[in-house]
Amino acid sequence: MKDQTFAATKNTQIRVTKCSPEYWRVTFDHPPLNIFGPEMLPFFLIHLDFLANLDDLAHLPAGPTGLHPWPEMLVRLCRAAVVSIASIRGRATGMGSELALACDMRFASREKAILSQFEVGAGLVPGGGPMAQLTRLMGRGRALEVILSANDVPGDLAELYGYVNRSLPDADLDGFVDALAGRIASFDKRTIMDTRRLVNLAGMPPDIEIESGWNACVASMARPATQERIKELIGRGFCKPGDAENHLGEFVGQHGR
Amino acid sequence: MKDQTFAATKNTQIRVTKCSPEYWRVTFDHPPLNIFGPEMLPFFLIHLDFLANLDDLAHLPAGPTGLHPWPEMLVRLCRAAVVSIASIRGRATGMGSELALACDMRFASREKAILSQFEVGAGLVPGGGPMAQLTRLMGRGRALEVILSANDVPGDLAELYGYVNRSLPDADLDGFVDALAGRIASFDKRTIMDTRRLVNLAGMPPDIEIESGWNACVASMARPATQERIKELIGRGFCKPGDAENHLGEFVGQHGR
Amino acid sequence: MKDQTFAATKNTQIRVTKCSPEYWRVTFDHPPLNIFGPEMLPFFLIHLDFLANLDDLAHLPAGPTGLHPWPEMLVRLCRAAVVSIASIRGRATGMGSELALACDMRFASREKAILSQFEVGAGLVPGGGPMAQLTRLMGRGRALEVILSANDVPGDLAELYGYVNRSLPDADLDGFVDALAGRIASFDKRTIMDTRRLVNLAGMPPDIEIESGWNACVASMARPATQERIKELIGRGFCKPGDAENHLGEFVGQHGR
Repeated sequence: MKDQTFAATKNTQIRVTKCSPEYWRVTFDHPPLNIFGPEMLPFFLIHLDFLANLDDLAHLPAGPTGLHPWPEMLVRLCRAAVVSIASIRGRATGMGSELALACDMRFASREKAILSQFEVGAGLVPGGGPMAQLTRLMGRGRALEVILSANDVPGDLAELYGYVNRSLPDADLDGFVDALAGRIASFDKRTIMDTRRLVNLAGMPPDIEIESGWNACVASMARPATQERIKELIGRGFCKPGDAENHLGEFVGQHGR
Repeated sequence: MKDQTFAATKNTQIRVTKCSPEYWRVTFDHPPLNIFGPEMLPFFLIHLDFLANLDDLAHLPAGPTGLHPWPEMLVRLCRAAVVSIASIRGRATGMGSELALACDMRFASREKAILSQFEVGAGLVPGGGPMAQLTRLMGRGRALEVILSANDVPGDLAELYGYVNRSLPDADLDGFVDALAGRIASFDKRTIMDTRRLVNLAGMPPDIEIESGWNACVASMARPATQERIKELIGRGFCKPGDAENHLGEFVGQHGR
Repeated sequence: MKDQTFAATKNTQIRVTKCSPEYWRVTFDHPPLNIFGPEMLPFFLIHLDFLANLDDLAHLPAGPTGLHPWPEMLVRLCRAAVVSIASIRGRATGMGSELALACDMRFASREKAILSQFEVGAGLVPGGGPMAQLTRLMGRGRALEVILSANDVPGDLAELYGYVNRSLPDADLDGFVDALAGRIASFDKRTIMDTRRLVNLAGMPPDIEIESGWNACVASMARPATQERIKELIGRGFCKPGDAENHLGEFVGQHGR
């Protein structure tokens, strides 16, 4: 087993552990908030850093599918020649949740995982496809609850709703995911890819639906009401270490009440 | 908070509580059976009143989408500029279930809610889209069980199957739904509508599928076997206060055994 | 009640019990392994017998839909003029799982049922449509886990994932399924068929998706890597009574580790 650590940005560490030639583990560790700035694409983080220059993000050139690099990365992950398993310990909200949803499977720590799409609470349409993905995973009613409430979804509820495959006791999570990944890595790659293609045919949204969501996100970001809202949230502690980020679901729900 | 009560019909009360300008609560209270006559469209009731003149229902003029007013109301609810949350305490069967399914989200009292589509037990194809809606919420196998068995689905099973988002202890239901509705009502309306449109794109059946179900319902209603069946059920207490309505799932299952 | 037993092949018994004119029970009993040889089409078994001549299977003539008889039988079952309920006690893997998925509903013994698609563990793309069916029942993430892990899915997990409608205590399974079947059998047949057609419209994959899966299966079967893999598994006990078949999930996972 060989560990390599990359400094993706000045304060982010991404560890890649090659458990075997077929099985690699990628760990995202981006203290203190694990949030996402334009320079971080396409790495796994909690949510977008609204303190950064968002124009940098909006003006990134389109990728090969014609999509903006963020949705581009997400739709390409499920077609890449690797099976991706998200193991979630801690918070995965916004882009973090979207990346988990773009993976092939998701497992969560029952005690320590929190998933959410907080965006609507900040006046934003989520941009990385959760309307398309969550609706296919859990049905319209639960997807609307998760996305429109913008509230935290702990491990057990995430399992009940199908947001994740399963939530596992935190002590079992790593062993379970490791065994599953090693098992799949031992099977024939061509067979895996041919099989996954047909699951994706049945369960992946078409690119155009992801693109439509991204466009709605960009439009919402430009609206004065949203810019006011984000400014207000930042004034109260959003995107900085502290209570706001630690209890983001509660935090965005306090507005205007 | 301002309460208004409307007498929708001679023995029905509909209470509208304006909790805030953005958050209204509508309560349907239609003693003793909460069932639905042609004059009640489009209000929330247990099921169609087969003692009323059904021709009145069949001959209502089509609405703007070209659908009969009942499916019309249902397909338009999800496009209306309000988020709708069904809170179910007691029985919601037939049209009551269909209206709940047309809402954006559904929550049920664990102890007191019973959902069902009783229609097949009365020889009828359900007319308000549960084949389209339940199949998308819970998959083909469970939807077939619910609809073809025509049996009662209590709160816990409704949650397991995804018929409702969640079932909650009866004592917690009102507080939970109130907090959720207030929370969503505090967010930006335009963002909510743009987001919901994309969830609906992924999870709502096309109108033509709802129309096809309505046509199958009307055709089934006209068949002599169905008319005989309904007459037999009415002879045994259907649509009147008493055991038949109180245990409708059991009641329709007793036929021919 | 009238029992008839057919000797489908030299060592297979299929019992048909006519509980009533409308309600028949078909029991598959194929000791010792309940596995499937070409002569057994279209009966319910654990999985394909790889010790038989697979050319016999590949060269069976196409059925009326143009599909190979195996997927043909599966896609026609849901359109046949009977409602089919799978009651699973014991192992249903590979073709056994695929037949259960082609039925209208599935119930499992909580203690004794094991479902799976073991094929990927043998280098094969599953041929009877589980990529299409499981993805619609449980979403992309869980379907990928079930199919790519090729691992055993016990009753409780099958219920959580929606692989089966419900898992029931073994002592309750027969009574539950019998009551459900008798209940549905007492309802109007035309109404049932018209209703089911609309559920299928929303929840059944198109034939072409099943055909695509079958073609991928046949292609995988022809690859040298797969033939090597199957030979290796047979050398270790696959398709013969014993530990390999009794713990198939574990068995296929031991390869190459």
